[in-house]
Amino acid sequence: MCRWLAYSGTPIPLEELLYKPRYSLIDQSLHSRMGVETTNGDGFGAGWYTPEGPAAPTLFRGTGPAWGDVNLRELARSTCSGLFLAHIRASTGTPVQQTNSHPFRYGRWLWVHNGSIREFHRLKRDLVLAVDPALYPSLAGSTDSEVMFFLALTFGLQDEPLPAVERMAGFVEAVGRQHGVEHPLQMTVGTSDGDRVWGFRYSSEGRSRTLYVSTDVTALRALYPENETLRRISDETRIVVSEPLGELKGAWQPVPESSWGVVQKGADELGTFRPR
Amino acid sequence: MCRWLAYSGTPIPLEELLYKPRYSLIDQSLHSRMGVETTNGDGFGAGWYTPEGPAAPTLFRGTGPAWGDVNLRELARSTCSGLFLAHIRASTGTPVQQTNSHPFRYGRWLWVHNGSIREFHRLKRDLVLAVDPALYPSLAGSTDSEVMFFLALTFGLQDEPLPAVERMAGFVEAVGRQHGVEHPLQMTVGTSDGDRVWGFRYSSEGRSRTLYVSTDVTALRALYPENETLRRISDETRIVVSEPLGELKGAWQPVPESSWGVVQKGADELGTFRPR
Amino acid sequence: MCRWLAYSGTPIPLEELLYKPRYSLIDQSLHSRMGVETTNGDGFGAGWYTPEGPAAPTLFRGTGPAWGDVNLRELARSTCSGLFLAHIRASTGTPVQQTNSHPFRYGRWLWVHNGSIREFHRLKRDLVLAVDPALYPSLAGSTDSEVMFFLALTFGLQDEPLPAVERMAGFVEAVGRQHGVEHPLQMTVGTSDGDRVWGFRYSSEGRSRTLYVSTDVTALRALYPENETLRRISDETRIVVSEPLGELKGAWQPVPESSWGVVQKGADELGTFRPR
Amino acid sequence: MCRWLAYSGTPIPLEELLYKPRYSLIDQSLHSRMGVETTNGDGFGAGWYTPEGPAAPTLFRGTGPAWGDVNLRELARSTCSGLFLAHIRASTGTPVQQTNSHPFRYGRWLWVHNGSIREFHRLKRDLVLAVDPALYPSLAGSTDSEVMFFLALTFGLQDEPLPAVERMAGFVEAVGRQHGVEHPLQMTVGTSDGDRVWGFRYSSEGRSRTLYVSTDVTALRALYPENETLRRISDETRIVVSEPLGELKGAWQPVPESSWGVVQKGADELGTFRPR
Repeated sequence: MCRWLAYSGTPIPLEELLYKPRYSLIDQSLHSRMGVETTNGDGFGAGWYTPEGPAAPTLFRGTGPAWGDVNLRELARSTCSGLFLAHIRASTGTPVQQTNSHPFRYGRWLWVHNGSIREFHRLKRDLVLAVDPALYPSLAGSTDSEVMFFLALTFGLQDEPLPAVERMAGFVEAVGRQHGVEHPLQMTVGTSDGDRVWGFRYSSEGRSRTLYVSTDVTALRALYPENETLRRISDETRIVVSEPLGELKGAWQPVPESSWGVVQKGADELGTFRPR
Repeated sequence: MCRWLAYSGTPIPLEELLYKPRYSLIDQSLHSRMGVETTNGDGFGAGWYTPEGPAAPTLFRGTGPAWGDVNLRELARSTCSGLFLAHIRASTGTPVQQTNSHPFRYGRWLWVHNGSIREFHRLKRDLVLAVDPALYPSLAGSTDSEVMFFLALTFGLQDEPLPAVERMAGFVEAVGRQHGVEHPLQMTVGTSDGDRVWGFRYSSEGRSRTLYVSTDVTALRALYPENETLRRISDETRIVVSEPLGELKGAWQPVPESSWGVVQKGADELGTFRPR
Repeated sequence: MCRWLAYSGTPIPLEELLYKPRYSLIDQSLHSRMGVETTNGDGFGAGWYTPEGPAAPTLFRGTGPAWGDVNLRELARSTCSGLFLAHIRASTGTPVQQTNSHPFRYGRWLWVHNGSIREFHRLKRDLVLAVDPALYPSLAGSTDSEVMFFLALTFGLQDEPLPAVERMAGFVEAVGRQHGVEHPLQMTVGTSDGDRVWGFRYSSEGRSRTLYVSTDVTALRALYPENETLRRISDETRIVVSEPLGELKGAWQPVPESSWGVVQKGADELGTFRPR
Repeated sequence: MCRWLAYSGTPIPLEELLYKPRYSLIDQSLHSRMGVETTNGDGFGAGWYTPEGPAAPTLFRGTGPAWGDVNLRELARSTCSGLFLAHIRASTGTPVQQTNSHPFRYGRWLWVHNGSIREFHRLKRDLVLAVDPALYPSLAGSTDSEVMFFLALTFGLQDEPLPAVERMAGFVEAVGRQHGVEHPLQMTVGTSDGDRVWGFRYSSEGRSRTLYVSTDVTALRALYPENETLRRISDETRIVVSEPLGELKGAWQPVPESSWGVVQKGADELGTFRPR
């Protein structure tokens, strides 16, 4: 069980989402309200894209609780980005180590996950064997989340994200069934190539972890004409989160069960997620 | 806010108290039921005495959450002791670092603390100045808890523990008053020289953190004649804890507000704690 | 490049070998004299067997430099054992994390390694595929050393250690050749089941890392009749090390190139190591 | 014993000095050529100023060896700054913890130190007592280096850096003499307010740790007309280092024994350092 967020829009210091709101992501590391676990203290990470920076996003990942990490606080204060992902981890059994902290990165791509593959230790070998041998050496950690990322990469994430993630989910479920695991997959996933952000909410049993997307900024401004923050951010700014930040009523829409969405220039999209 | 326990009695593997009971100390690191904070993830420590080991107790202290520490689990399984203290920390502001994890040690003495000195950053200089200059170089960390220990040592802990801790409390309150701090001291403290264990429960406002002591073993055996564990442990075995472990009804007595106690060979003692 | 030692004999506090000798293992973490790298600061570990302890050996592993680890110093002072292995790590590229620190453990078995599999990232997938699927879920880290251990387990380490390690070496070399890697294997390995200690020195190019075994105690006593330590330890006490500890002339014999040895009750054995 | 560098000039990614040169600062963490200790693996830190960032510099500090820190590598690649300080630590006895890693920061000021106060544990109390009580609560760690910084702040660092540091040195020597410590002070110090960088080289015995400053860029360009890097950086770019980076002959001037210097807009200055 974990919590994550993805931000796309007007560049802001990371601390605006990680620390400042009531129920901020860092608050959730100590007191999640909607999580299966209330504490997410088994590591954390953030990955950000900057136009002037390197093509690949920059990663900062730690193994302790996010709430007490002095370096994260420093960097969140001084780092501005218009597209970033952040994650706080509650281990479901795999070791607490930097290579198991999200986001995971491959080339320009970042990946965060909340959920688990049930009985992963039994399924792991078959799942890992299906990872493209050319990608295999880049598998650095031991989590189900990273294997899901590398399966999605194997199935074409960099070219067509939606079908690749649907294939990954379908494959995990097929392997699960072969091993007699009921409801093998539970996930909300966020992934980005630096231009667009995709979000996925799905679970084999149809009761997925929560996921929310921020309400359209134009609509929010109409509701809260005096809100300073809303005036500063662009119309296209969007946030995807495991559980709502802040206290602004009407600011968050639940992402429906078994669905995918993409935040991008122009109209965002939302659709039904179907494992293949 | 922290949680601690002290054990004196028949030698047992540390894991018997740290891991095995429902609501064990390690459970409390993730889900304390009675603490001001429900999470105690800012470090941990254990100190144990062994007859065949070195005269000074052995310390094992970490900076991450106790619930995920692989080494603690290993050592708790393989280490037997008839007198040990353990602690899980929730920082009240001072850094998460090994020198701030409890127990603190000086010679044969160990010290654990739950609570705080209010506005410690304002009072700290005056408190530290009162530490015996010969002890000063042994102050290794930056917590209020360690300063309390060194003040108690300065006031004679090694010779007469009760008056030394009472003087420490009185001194902290006097310095607090000088700086206009209402209710400066909040504490439960456990300390030992390897032979006896002292417990203290006190706060300036008369609403101290909880403290419990295990019921006399003979009485418990009468209540639970079939309980295997109770048959194995000696009549003199006692446990002092911030909050009860396990689910045995009648196993725990609350330590009264403003009191001290000592667990020792022969009759234990309990009395009223009065800052001097 | 790493350094390790294995001790079998009269129970002693671990610090006798880890800290006290000139050129002790912990000294070697900062200043190895014979290593390819002079610094071994990428983690450390010790595993020890005790007759009264649990059947499986106890592990203590860290990720920082051994020379500064306060807990290791504490435990080495208070832990006595008649059979223990210890290791200091210099990473050859894989992450510095607890699951990559030696010794590795499986059941009653411990394993330490100095050396590397060349171009491991290219060979890893084929090597891991050959690990028994029943053992695969216990692979916890990402090093070549752990894969070598699990291959040896797959090839029968628990039943017949020598042929199992020879098969492992032969298999690594065969996979290396398939991938066009010249001289794929470089190793000194120590392994134990709690009763006996095996040591192996081998490399594909015939220029293996150094390995030494302590001289027979009876012979040493004749050389140094006044030496107190030699009087205290049993005739069968033996130490295997990557590089000599202390300054006693004649105390160490180099283990020959391409050989194996076993320290056991009764006569020790030494033979030629031949990959199968 | 430590190593540090200070950079002032054309904004560059930190990795240009921390990683890319032969004998880079990170190389020196594993293999210092001129240090009293060859390994500087007890923590590290960097502090940087950015015009668009917060007024106070950003700090990133770790407790492990710099050579293996994945986050440092990420940040050094993506962070550009025209004024930064970096430091790698070899502890002279005080604990390895984040609050003991350099740079230290107070307001806009950063401070790095190589050297030590001899018998600091005996002198510490008198030195700390002299720190301005208003500054005292900001003392976070336990090193001699941080106490020197806070003494310099007490003596007016923020208004007149040179006399403040000279008074600090004089005070440390006076306290040392009172305690019968010969040659109490050994230091090279770098400090900055974000506009200028001061460097100090001094020791009580007149044999100070090495310090170098980069040769005037105009002169270097004349020597190396083809060098690309030299064409890109401004005439005023300067680097101060414990030991030279890279292999460019003539690029570094030793800072004389007992001297101070300042890198600033307009002509830099150099003078004799005299403890007061």
